[in-house]
Amino acid sequence: MNFCEKLENRVKRTGSLLCIGLDPDPDLIPEPFGTESEGIFLFLREVIEATAFYASAMKPNLSYFEALGVEGFKLFERVLKVIPDDMPIIADAKRGDIGHSSKRYAHALLDHFGCDAVTVNPFMGQDSIEPFSDHQSKGVFVLCLTSNSGSQDFQLPHLHLHVAEKVRQWNRHGNLGLVVGATHPGRISAIRKISGPMPYLIPGVGAQGGELEKTLNAAKDGTKIPCLINASRSILYAENPNDMEGTQGTNKFSKIDCISRSHHAASDLKKRISNFLEG
Amino acid sequence: MNFCEKLENRVKRTGSLLCIGLDPDPDLIPEPFGTESEGIFLFLREVIEATAFYASAMKPNLSYFEALGVEGFKLFERVLKVIPDDMPIIADAKRGDIGHSSKRYAHALLDHFGCDAVTVNPFMGQDSIEPFSDHQSKGVFVLCLTSNSGSQDFQLPHLHLHVAEKVRQWNRHGNLGLVVGATHPGRISAIRKISGPMPYLIPGVGAQGGELEKTLNAAKDGTKIPCLINASRSILYAENPNDMEGTQGTNKFSKIDCISRSHHAASDLKKRISNFLEG
Repeated sequence: MNFCEKLENRVKRTGSLLCIGLDPDPDLIPEPFGTESEGIFLFLREVIEATAFYASAMKPNLSYFEALGVEGFKLFERVLKVIPDDMPIIADAKRGDIGHSSKRYAHALLDHFGCDAVTVNPFMGQDSIEPFSDHQSKGVFVLCLTSNSGSQDFQLPHLHLHVAEKVRQWNRHGNLGLVVGATHPGRISAIRKISGPMPYLIPGVGAQGGELEKTLNAAKDGTKIPCLINASRSILYAENPNDMEGTQGTNKFSKIDCISRSHHAASDLKKRISNFLEG
Repeated sequence: MNFCEKLENRVKRTGSLLCIGLDPDPDLIPEPFGTESEGIFLFLREVIEATAFYASAMKPNLSYFEALGVEGFKLFERVLKVIPDDMPIIADAKRGDIGHSSKRYAHALLDHFGCDAVTVNPFMGQDSIEPFSDHQSKGVFVLCLTSNSGSQDFQLPHLHLHVAEKVRQWNRHGNLGLVVGATHPGRISAIRKISGPMPYLIPGVGAQGGELEKTLNAAKDGTKIPCLINASRSILYAENPNDMEGTQGTNKFSKIDCISRSHHAASDLKKRISNFLEG
């Protein structure tokens, strides 16, 4: 079963387009769990268990694991094992290098760690992306228009459209997709016109303030290929919606409180997406 | 002592602008060393010892370590420890993500693993690069015009100049530099005009066939800030210059033969660079 089939099956089973980003940020993890490797593992395991029912994918961001060095990669391995078997795992790594080196990154993330999909950076062009997409059973989400303020520097006004065009041309195994930030809802339909049908991974709706409904509307491609709405911090650290950046709010609650809030945040966002799709 | 000072001191001491790329490719490592973690460590330790005398920096490429998973990061730690103390280490990671995540990558590579500099990808813009350059004592080489064929896809014809311009503007701590491939010697002087003086990291002269002398000529900035010429495969796997891509040639020799060839390849390239600079 390839990535797209696995994703479609999961979407069918859960009725959800929600992707949960696993970003274990030591500054935000609720205090009862601590910041040691074991505590972070327990936190992520609890969040995964409490939210899996609402999710069609999980997206660990490699930066948070790499920050812990060797221990972080041990943690990454442990976390991958507690994600339900039929849940597609997207390694959010944003890798990209000359062909020889991209081949090693693809081996690391897709073979060695066994993730189902990966995010990659297009700056170095076709030979930096092919070693990933040559893994034909895996998915490859290419950064197109990202959700951060720096997307203004190079991606806008035109480069993101150029990326969408190239990715459409390079998609010979049908396993490419795009990362398109929900902070740019007005630009998504132009990207869709160029890329044609392919899965989109859409970050930026939670803590970054992107507009969910406008984004979903613009991302539609008239097929059953799913667009995944990703939320990371707004679900993992959902204790205090008015103060998600600070740590003050997070320390007040017990472990059960914190995880319960993550559970509700996932449930709420899944409902918002479903209401829109059905409405 | 910051990165630039460390680099200048090393260049003064060795008289060399050579950077040696540490790319432990399991397909190319000479057979007598094997492909297990211990053998790869011994191979890299021997290469480092045999070539350090000719080098002013070493550049491990993270992809080759990540490909080995947890073991690979243990290996990375061990390798960092056998590089001479006064040798600047450039983590060739090509990372870049939204601010929160880039902060974790910067912590991983510059604090946790303690490298002196890092390569980063500019596609996601200023907030993806600042968490690296905020480490004011460290160096940050931003990809500008890379040595691979994919540089045609987006970097040319104009984006690389735009990157050079932004990097010049963002260089408020004086610790930014550019990655400029020696496979584009005719374009380097235009980049230099825009960037002004800053260190360049120049890959592509060895196995990729870039033109050394033309490149050095174009990269000059009239200051003492060094431009580093990187060679990886052409030094590490120097056994058979006519067949560097294959593994056939590498299997014929003893460990000592292989390392001796790496030694001579480093010595020869250092001499070619010095002859040009003195000529």
